[in-house]
Parts: sequence; C-alpha cells; structure tokens
Amino acid sequence: MIVVMKTDAPISEIQRIIQELRSWNITPEKIVGKHKVIIGLVGDTATLNSEKIQQLSPFIEKVVNIDKPFKRASLEFRYGEPTEVFVSTPNGIVVFGQHHPIVSIAGPCSVENEEMIIETAWRVKAAGAKLLRGGAYKPRTSPYSFQGHGESALDLLAKAREVTGLGIITEVMDAEQLAQVAEVADIIQVGARNMQNFSLLKRVGATNKPVLLKRGLAATIEDWLMAAEYIMAEGNPNVILCERGIRTFDRKYTRNTLDLAAIPVLRTLTHLPIMIDPSHGTGWAEYVPTMAIAAIAAGADSLMIEVHPNPAKALSDGPQSLTPQQYDQLMQQMATIGEAVGRWPVKSPVLAYSGVA
Amino acid sequence: MIVVMKTDAPISEIQRIIQELRSWNITPEKIVGKHKVIIGLVGDTATLNSEKIQQLSPFIEKVVNIDKPFKRASLEFRYGEPTEVFVSTPNGIVVFGQHHPIVSIAGPCSVENEEMIIETAWRVKAAGAKLLRGGAYKPRTSPYSFQGHGESALDLLAKAREVTGLGIITEVMDAEQLAQVAEVADIIQVGARNMQNFSLLKRVGATNKPVLLKRGLAATIEDWLMAAEYIMAEGNPNVILCERGIRTFDRKYTRNTLDLAAIPVLRTLTHLPIMIDPSHGTGWAEYVPTMAIAAIAAGADSLMIEVHPNPAKALSDGPQSLTPQQYDQLMQQMATIGEAVGRWPVKSPVLAYSGVA
Amino acid sequence: MIVVMKTDAPISEIQRIIQELRSWNITPEKIVGKHKVIIGLVGDTATLNSEKIQQLSPFIEKVVNIDKPFKRASLEFRYGEPTEVFVSTPNGIVVFGQHHPIVSIAGPCSVENEEMIIETAWRVKAAGAKLLRGGAYKPRTSPYSFQGHGESALDLLAKAREVTGLGIITEVMDAEQLAQVAEVADIIQVGARNMQNFSLLKRVGATNKPVLLKRGLAATIEDWLMAAEYIMAEGNPNVILCERGIRTFDRKYTRNTLDLAAIPVLRTLTHLPIMIDPSHGTGWAEYVPTMAIAAIAAGADSLMIEVHPNPAKALSDGPQSLTPQQYDQLMQQMATIGEAVGRWPVKSPVLAYSGVA
Amino acid sequence: MIVVMKTDAPISEIQRIIQELRSWNITPEKIVGKHKVIIGLVGDTATLNSEKIQQLSPFIEKVVNIDKPFKRASLEFRYGEPTEVFVSTPNGIVVFGQHHPIVSIAGPCSVENEEMIIETAWRVKAAGAKLLRGGAYKPRTSPYSFQGHGESALDLLAKAREVTGLGIITEVMDAEQLAQVAEVADIIQVGARNMQNFSLLKRVGATNKPVLLKRGLAATIEDWLMAAEYIMAEGNPNVILCERGIRTFDRKYTRNTLDLAAIPVLRTLTHLPIMIDPSHGTGWAEYVPTMAIAAIAAGADSLMIEVHPNPAKALSDGPQSLTPQQYDQLMQQMATIGEAVGRWPVKSPVLAYSGVA
Repeated sequence: MIVVMKTDAPISEIQRIIQELRSWNITPEKIVGKHKVIIGLVGDTATLNSEKIQQLSPFIEKVVNIDKPFKRASLEFRYGEPTEVFVSTPNGIVVFGQHHPIVSIAGPCSVENEEMIIETAWRVKAAGAKLLRGGAYKPRTSPYSFQGHGESALDLLAKAREVTGLGIITEVMDAEQLAQVAEVADIIQVGARNMQNFSLLKRVGATNKPVLLKRGLAATIEDWLMAAEYIMAEGNPNVILCERGIRTFDRKYTRNTLDLAAIPVLRTLTHLPIMIDPSHGTGWAEYVPTMAIAAIAAGADSLMIEVHPNPAKALSDGPQSLTPQQYDQLMQQMATIGEAVGRWPVKSPVLAYSGVA
Repeated sequence: MIVVMKTDAPISEIQRIIQELRSWNITPEKIVGKHKVIIGLVGDTATLNSEKIQQLSPFIEKVVNIDKPFKRASLEFRYGEPTEVFVSTPNGIVVFGQHHPIVSIAGPCSVENEEMIIETAWRVKAAGAKLLRGGAYKPRTSPYSFQGHGESALDLLAKAREVTGLGIITEVMDAEQLAQVAEVADIIQVGARNMQNFSLLKRVGATNKPVLLKRGLAATIEDWLMAAEYIMAEGNPNVILCERGIRTFDRKYTRNTLDLAAIPVLRTLTHLPIMIDPSHGTGWAEYVPTMAIAAIAAGADSLMIEVHPNPAKALSDGPQSLTPQQYDQLMQQMATIGEAVGRWPVKSPVLAYSGVA
Repeated sequence: MIVVMKTDAPISEIQRIIQELRSWNITPEKIVGKHKVIIGLVGDTATLNSEKIQQLSPFIEKVVNIDKPFKRASLEFRYGEPTEVFVSTPNGIVVFGQHHPIVSIAGPCSVENEEMIIETAWRVKAAGAKLLRGGAYKPRTSPYSFQGHGESALDLLAKAREVTGLGIITEVMDAEQLAQVAEVADIIQVGARNMQNFSLLKRVGATNKPVLLKRGLAATIEDWLMAAEYIMAEGNPNVILCERGIRTFDRKYTRNTLDLAAIPVLRTLTHLPIMIDPSHGTGWAEYVPTMAIAAIAAGADSLMIEVHPNPAKALSDGPQSLTPQQYDQLMQQMATIGEAVGRWPVKSPVLAYSGVA
Repeated sequence: MIVVMKTDAPISEIQRIIQELRSWNITPEKIVGKHKVIIGLVGDTATLNSEKIQQLSPFIEKVVNIDKPFKRASLEFRYGEPTEVFVSTPNGIVVFGQHHPIVSIAGPCSVENEEMIIETAWRVKAAGAKLLRGGAYKPRTSPYSFQGHGESALDLLAKAREVTGLGIITEVMDAEQLAQVAEVADIIQVGARNMQNFSLLKRVGATNKPVLLKRGLAATIEDWLMAAEYIMAEGNPNVILCERGIRTFDRKYTRNTLDLAAIPVLRTLTHLPIMIDPSHGTGWAEYVPTMAIAAIAAGADSLMIEVHPNPAKALSDGPQSLTPQQYDQLMQQMATIGEAVGRWPVKSPVLAYSGVA
C-alpha cells in the first residue's frame, strides 16, 4: 500500500502522517521521487483501511493498494518512477537507472594475479568501462575446480580500484565473507546459484551497499523479484537485477538461453535497474557481441562482460571471455546502438526511446 | 562433402566433373556463389574418397567434408556464403539475406474479412512492409476455436496482393491444401507445430516456392536445421528460418521465451536467412516493439509482426497484435536501429556490422 | 454441457430429449455408461440455458456445465466413468481401461524384414504381449536416416498379425498413408511430433479405429487433451493417451524425462485410458525395466516397450530396445507389481488400488 | 583413482600402502566394503602413475581411474558397493541403503506449535515412520511469508524426538544455524534452493551428521552429484540424495515434475542412497499416494511425505500435505508394493528386485 502525497504537501504534514501511521504499529517509508513524495507501507497491511488513511490529511492525493506479491520492488511502490542506484567509485558517482546512460562493466571471471587484474582494469577502463568485475570467491560446480583466491584476490581488487579509479563489483558467497567483500566492493554481487539463498539475501539487505542480484538458472521473473524483495525488506533499496541466461532444453550451442524479453517485462513490473550479462547468457565469446548489442537495443541499463587478457589460459570461464581488444571493438559497436537509443555516455540522445504508447 | 572449384575453372570443366560424379551414382548439385562455384555432394558419401575426387581435375581447389548432420543447410555447404532467397511480389523482387536490408512483414493472425485484410494491407504497406502475412488455415489448440476461413481467405489474400502489390505469406497445414496455398502465397509458411511434420516438409520441399520454417516450441537448433534439411533434400533451397519463441518454465508474463541468441548461433552453422517473430515470441503487444528492435540489433534478416486494425476484436491472437498506428511508430523506431546497423532499406549504411574478428 | 438422465429414464424419453435438442440446432451425443445414460452437448453451448434443458423432462437428473476447454475428453463428459477402448485382434478383444488388466504391447521401433518381425511377434506374444508394435513409416530427425520400409512393412505387419494373432499398432504420418495403415493396424498411432498436426488429428478422428495419441515433447497436459479433443470432436471416442517423456534441461543420461505424475493428473481430468512408453521415455534399455514397473505402480492401463531381436544392429532406436529375453524377464517383474495392484491378466487382484479417500 | 586390495590383503599391508601414498603428498581414504577394502585417492591425481601404484604391493588387485567429474560420489569409488548411511535415533539405528528396507519419513512442512508437532509425531510413528520431518527455518519465496519459528521450533523437535523416539530431519539454511540444527537433527537437510550454496555444502561436509541433499529445481543429475561431492570432499560420506521434482514447462497441474527416472540413472552413477519426496514433487496431496507407490516400485530407498493434522490450516504447504489418516492408508498401500519388491520392513522379501541382467 502506498500513500501518494499531493505535490504541494508541506514536509511537516508528511512527517505528521508518517508519525500517525507509526502509531498504528506499521512501518512507513518515505520515498522522495522526482515529482512526488510517496509513503510506502509494507507488512501486515491486510487490516489497513485505505479510506481511513485517506482521511488523515487533505494533502494525500490517493492511497493505492499493491496487489503484487513483491511490494517494495513493484513499479507501483515508486508510483512508476525508476530507481536510480548511485554507486560511489574513485572516479566519481556512477548511476544505474532507466533515464541514465548505459553503464559498462567488464573484467575477468576470477582475479588470478596482480598483473592480470591491473592490466585488465586499465584496458577495460580505456574502452569505457566504469566498474571492474572480478571474482575473489568463485561458486564452481566442482569442489576440485579453482575456487578463487579469496582474501588475497580482494586485496588485488582494492589495488586495481586504487590505481585505476574504477569501481569494483565482486561476488559474496556467504555471511562470513560479507564484511571483507563489502570493504572492497562498490557493488556486491549475489550469484545465480545463491539467488534464493534467503539468509544471504537478508544479510546483504542489512548492508548499505548496492547489490547486484543475478537471476537464478530456473528462476521465474516473479521468483527473482521476490528475491529482490528480501533484500529491500531489510532496508536496502539499491538493488540491480542482472539477467544472465536461464536453463532450457537446448544447451548444445549456448550454455544458457539469454532471456532479453525480461527487460520489457521487468519494466512493467519494477522500478529497479536492469543489467544484462551476455557472457554467462551465451557461454561463448563469439556470441557475446551480438547479444550485448541486442541488450542495448532492448533497453538494458547496464552491460557486464567478461574480459580476460588471455582467455585460452583463464582459470575459469575462458571460452566466454573476450580479449581486451575484442572488448574495445565491441564497445565501439555498442556505442553506435547506444547512441541510436539515446543512452550512450557523453554524446546526446538521437532517439527518445519509448515503447508502444 | 563439397567440391570447391578454383575461380578460374571453366564452365565446361565444372560440367565435366559433375557428369563424372553422376556416373559414380551420386547426385551433385552446382551452387554458384558470388566468388566461387561449389559442387555439393549429398547422400551416401561415406564411401567417397576425397583424394580420388581431388584428382578429377586440376581446377578443383579442395574437397571438404561436412561433419554436421545437416548438410545442405550447413554453412560449409555454401562455403560460408549466405543464401539469398528471392521472393517475387507484384511490387518487385524482395530479397532475404544477410547482406540485404531487413525485410518487414506484417499482418493479422488470420484473415477475417475483406475489409480488414485490405485495410491492414494498405496500412502495413504504408509503414514499409514488403509482404502481408495472414492465416487462411489456422492451427489452433482447440477444435472449437476459429480455424481460419480457409479457401475464401486465400481469395481475399489474393485480392490484397493484387490491389496493394504486397507479397503474401500464409501457412499450409497439410498436403491437400498445398496446391491452393501455393497459388496465392509468395512464401509458404510451415508452422511451429508442424516443424517436424516430415511428410509436409517433403511436400513443400518438392515445390519451388520459398518456405518459411518456424522453429518448434521445443526444437533444438539442430532439430530445426534438420527440418530445413528435409525441405532442401527434396530440391528446394529457398528456406527462411523463423524463431518465434521456445517453451520454458516461465510462462506467466510471456507466452514463450524469444531466443535471440539463435541468430548468432545460426550464423555459425547455416547460410539460411533468419526471421524473428516477436509477436508469438512474447505473446503480448506491449513487449513486441522492444523485442523487434533487439532482433534488428542482433542481426535478424527479417521481422514478422502481427498487426490488426482492432486487436481487441481479433478472432485470434488479439493480445499480441499491434494496431496499424503502433506498427507505424514501431517501424520508425526500427528504422533508427536498422540504419545504425546498416541494414535499413533505401538509406545508406552507417555501421558495417560485424562480430568479433 | 452434459445432461445426466435418471437411472429409470425410459429409452423413448431419452430419444425424445435428443430429438428436441437437435431441433435447437445443437448436436447431442448419447453416452451409455455402466450406471447412467448421459447426453453430451458440445459446440456453441454458450447460449444454452441449463434450466431450460432441465425442464425438458422429469427424467433428467441434472444438467452439468463442463468448464474445461476440453469437453469430450473431460472426466465430467462421462460423469466420471472411465472409457473402455475395445480393440479387436485375431486372438480376441483387448480392452484398455482403468478397471481392466494392464495391456502389454511390444515390438521393434521399425519393421526391418519378415524374419525379424515374425520372430519378435512370437517372442513378445510368448511373454504375454497382446499387441505388436512396429513402424512402417518412421518420423526421423534426419532425412538421411532410415525412414521405414513403408507399404512393404505394412504387409509384413499384416502377416505377423495373421500368424500370431496379435493385434497391430503402427504409426500414420499423413492423410495419404491413412487408408493403408488403417487396413493393417488395430490401433493407429499418432506420434509425438504430430501431436499438434491438427489436419492429421481430424483425419484419424474421422475413422472408426482406436487411436494412440502420443504426448508431444513440449506438450502440456492441456495441449495433449485438446489434441485428443480434436480426434473425438470428429466422432471417434476411442483415444488412448501415451506418455513417452517430455523434453527438459537434463538430457545427458536420459533422452527425455518420463512424467509419470501425468497418470494421477490425467485421472482427475479425463476418462481416457493411459499408456506409458518407458522406451522413448528414458531412451536407454537399462532404465526401461525400472520405469515400466514404476508405471504399473502409478496406475498405467498399458505399457508399450521396444523389443528387438538384436538391438545392437537395429536400424533405429537400438539403444532403447530390450532383447526378447530381457522383455520376458521384465514381464515377470511386471507381473509381480501388476498383481500387487490387482491389474495383471488372469490372476486375481491382491489389492484394491485406490487413491487417498 | 582407487586402489582395490585383494581379499587376502593383510591389514598391515594396507596400512603400509596408505602410509606410502601419504608420503607422495596425496590423501588416501580407506573404504571398507562388504567384500573388499578400497583405498580412494582424490585430489590432484592427474600426475599419478597407476602402474607405479600397482607396483607398491602384490596385494593390490588393481588400480582404477575414475573418469567422472564426481569422484567420491561415483559408483566406482566404492567399487560398486552401495553406501549404507546409519542414522542413530532414540528408537535405534535406521539404515538407508539399497539393500535395506525402505525408510519412511513424515511430518509437517513447518513446526507450528507443540501440540501439532507432538501429535503428528505420534501419528506418523504409529503408521510406521522412522523419522519425523519438520521445518524450524523455512526458505520461503516471499519475505512476508511465515519463515519458521526457528530456535523454539528446534526445541519442539527435540521434545518430539524425546517423547516418541523418532529421529529428526530438519533443514539448515546457513552456517550460523548449523550448530543449533545439528544438536537436534539426526539428519541435516540442505534444501533445493541451497543445493549449490557451496559455502553451506562445505560446512555440512565438515560435520559428522548424515546430510539429506535435495536436488535443485534446475539441477542436472551431474550438478547434483557434484554438490554431493562438495560435502564428501570435506570428509562427510553420509549423504542421502533426495529427488523432489524439477521445474519444467508444465506447471498447471503439478508444482514440479517428479523425475523418477533419476533413480535408475543414479544407480548407474553413484553408491549413495536415494530418497523421493512426492509431496514437493507434485505439490498436491491428491497425487502424493500414486507417486509414493511408483517411487517404491522404482527402487527408492526412502520416502519423505508431508503430513499435517489439519492441512487446510497449515502455515505452509497445506495443499501438498496428507492428513495423518491419509498417511496411514498410504502406508498400507506402500506396504503392498514394498513387500512385492522385497523392501518393506519386518516382513520378508517376495521378489528379489533386479534390473535387466
């Protein structure tokens, strides 16, 4: 349930209403949008009477019920206004959101050594990336596969951050690692296999770091938004959704099936920013550029792409990694489409992108 | 197995080799590409000795084995050169192929009456469509649903063709309808549910009409190419592949999952042109524009979109149909991306589209 | 909509009601069950007033609406009474139905030559099979694979029928083959790939032969029942449903995923008999016995199993075929479970099988 | 790689070999089977020379390479001998294994209050269950759904264990809960959504408690065995695999698709015991009995079934729960089939169950 305030509602009146609602034993959240202030009410709202709330103040425009199972993640909760996730990096604030330029993220599957991560960082920065991805803790199907260099890899990420000024995005696999990871990461990643690790979701929800939530291999759109809701319900509204391919019956030529239609579908359901990962989404470097470009055309807010200085020798995910040179080329192709849809950094929009009216 | 001729091979020499091969009891096919002439050998080639063939003539550049289960449909069979499917319409020849502008096709799910089909034809033509789609025979899940107006609908399509000059694409469901359908259709469609109706594939393979082969709901890429092979093995090389969404575990917000990665995957496997149908691919009009644009960015050679003058009253597939006005708007958006990838009609290319080198 | 007659309703009164309903321009069907006579009304029943029908006669017990999209196939259409499909074979009538012993069917994927089909027929008959399966026309993924011996294979099936007295089940792939196939077959099979070949469904619906309808690889339970409805709507009520595995994300160790839960689900939806094909359902001979036994425990009315005298040399589906000796052993294992659930031929029931009350 | 010792190998010789192998810097594991002693070698065995190992002793029968990605979980690792998992309960030791009677487990989805859990415990014990299931910590799709009573629920389980003597199986969701859960549980459950929560797998692997590992919703057989390998690699060999339904395209009538063929497939791959959960596997109480019986016929070593005194009022999973009375009836049906396959407690085997020879 949300309470939409009139545009001329005085701050003091909004505060009064919030106080009043608190006295009813519910937890109101003030959401300041571009045009409106909204008071979100979540929890046991079944017994709430919307008419009674309406009567609290003449400055209440309307009271709206949210009939979706996900509340904070629903488009209605922000009265249709897209969320902006602000990520603080040494090079400045990077904004993820529907009305902002596409954010490029790149880097290796896992941090292998200082030279490779620093080199990759410089190369992807030169190509236009704003954040560096790199795994310190790696969820691997086999216990005998390389599991990431852990803590020392985090140190290398910190160093890469320091020298290049790029923001860092890296995965957390359990509560114990969280403090460490949060110290280095500008965005904390929850991986596909942990999308419904509800204990972990609650933990990252209790931090104030932006969270990248990857879609599970067999997660429905609704499962995914409910997982986001777990994070948001703990007080962290800064969730970015990342589509990375779902598991289907055909796995001969691609590792996963990249579900780009998730973008327009999510736009009708949620205000959260959307990232696409064409590297995991296809599993093969040769298909990554095409799907990256398609993702931009489909309206993605961010692209995360695996880049490795020497894919053939990568400790993990080599076959789906681009070389820095290939990434550089791809960024140029991406720019063409990004500009065509008016969402590429620096240059001005050519087309005001919109769906069917 | 293919025999690649040197560029300076005289026609008479090529003929001589073909004759010689025929005398070995195999059926050679001459394929004249832009740069090379190739002789394709299909059938029981297991016993053929490539060295022995090589020795037939000094004008043979090389003899290449095709190790894919699909032969004629494989990229190797044309030595990497994309097929061009030429479709003769009253308004002129329309070419489907990787080095040609994107072909737009639009129209209603089914032909309902003269007024609607003629009106739709004019409207989609005005927006830039080159062919009109429309069902006369409709494969419906329920025997009690509208099954199409059949023969009389074919007459109406013929009329729409005549008055607007648009080419016609319509579905054939069985051998009996084939002669009738082939009389009106410029492209014969084999629907998703008949993709492995091998008897029908053989029949359309025996005609000389271009065939649109829709991917089955649970067809792997390989199943699909093998279905194309059925048509081609009967002597009809003019096959266009149409991705229209596959069936996955999440069907709440989309009817199907549109597998756009099929485009780059097919590019590595086949020379056949690729069409995308975002209408069936998503099942909802509101998602069609985004996916149409993404399909263009992903390199589709053609787009087929359902358009109905009054979707709310459509006898079938209303929810996934655009209005003519929406289609018109979408074509403008498509033009922006189509131009960016250098594949929109009339205007000249801005970007030479290419994958990672 | 169905009209349930009281048990004491005179035949003349039932006839009068049917005549009356015909005069309303709808097509009533008289269904004589064990305990009740029902009049089924299918077609455009939306405008029918159930109260008005009720008033037609004091012998009408009640008028029930069928809210499922499948009407004739729905359990309600027969007021809960299972259909019995009677198949006439030289050795006598074989009955498929929920209150009858399990019917065993076996034989090779395709009819290869006289010796093999006759030998197999004798062997499976000795083991207890009542019908012989064998393909004359084979739907193969590749046009270059063995397509079945066609007409001559039908002759061999006729011969096997004559000498062993077994009934014959064989697949029809198109309308042209239908008359030929129907001459030899006691049950006509529509294969998984043709489950939504609606033209073919209508054709077999217009015959009076029992039809085995295999579930499509990605067919939902509802798709499947709607396909059965196509056959039944043409006047042929003798449909047997065959689950043969669906396509899922894991195809490494089994070709398909055998959905045995389809049995209890179908029991709540339809009166039609259910067959299980564990050979296609798993794709590997070593898994067939376990799944055959599980199918019996799950309540299957019939089992169809591939048996070949020499699986290693089979022209098709060798890996999933049992040898006659293995089949014989399996039939003994099946007997143990079949007797335990009270559904094995000859011997008397041990357990009155029932679901949770 | 495993070293199979001859049957007459002296213990001292086995010890000597183990010591020798340790000096090579690998970690040998002694596995004492019914007939043979095996020394398992896992880790970086790529450089090991099997011939060199063979020469270590004349009492070595042979050295066998394991070519599967899962090592300890592979059938070869125990030279084909099924694992027996011994679970200590107040009522005595319960053994899970292929040559033991089927173990019945039942109880509610979640522990709601003392009365309900104690009542349910007594009822399922009376029906023949050996362990009580019940959730204290519940992984729920929504953060607003009941999340389990946590610690207090564990206390109630402990009480139920004490008064009825039943063993306890309950789920652990993260490392923090583990010590608590392990204090009460006789078997620790890792849920489907945590199947690839590798941090958690390592943690339960480091305990000495038997672990029930549920298959993930989109986990392949191989993913699942690799997850088991994570647990085993930490030193805990007592893993029970639980199939509970996978996610497929048809979710209208069942929540999941129960993959019973996993049983015969796993038998060819692993020595670990197999449990079936027909409650989650179908999602509806009415389908549970049929699938439970089918699971027994398919060779399951254990059945876990949800039972609630009042399913209509259950705080979670009511629709898939049986009443105690229904469970009692089902156990009688299960006994019939269980006896037929020679695997029901107390009574003697009727049929020596075996696959195709």
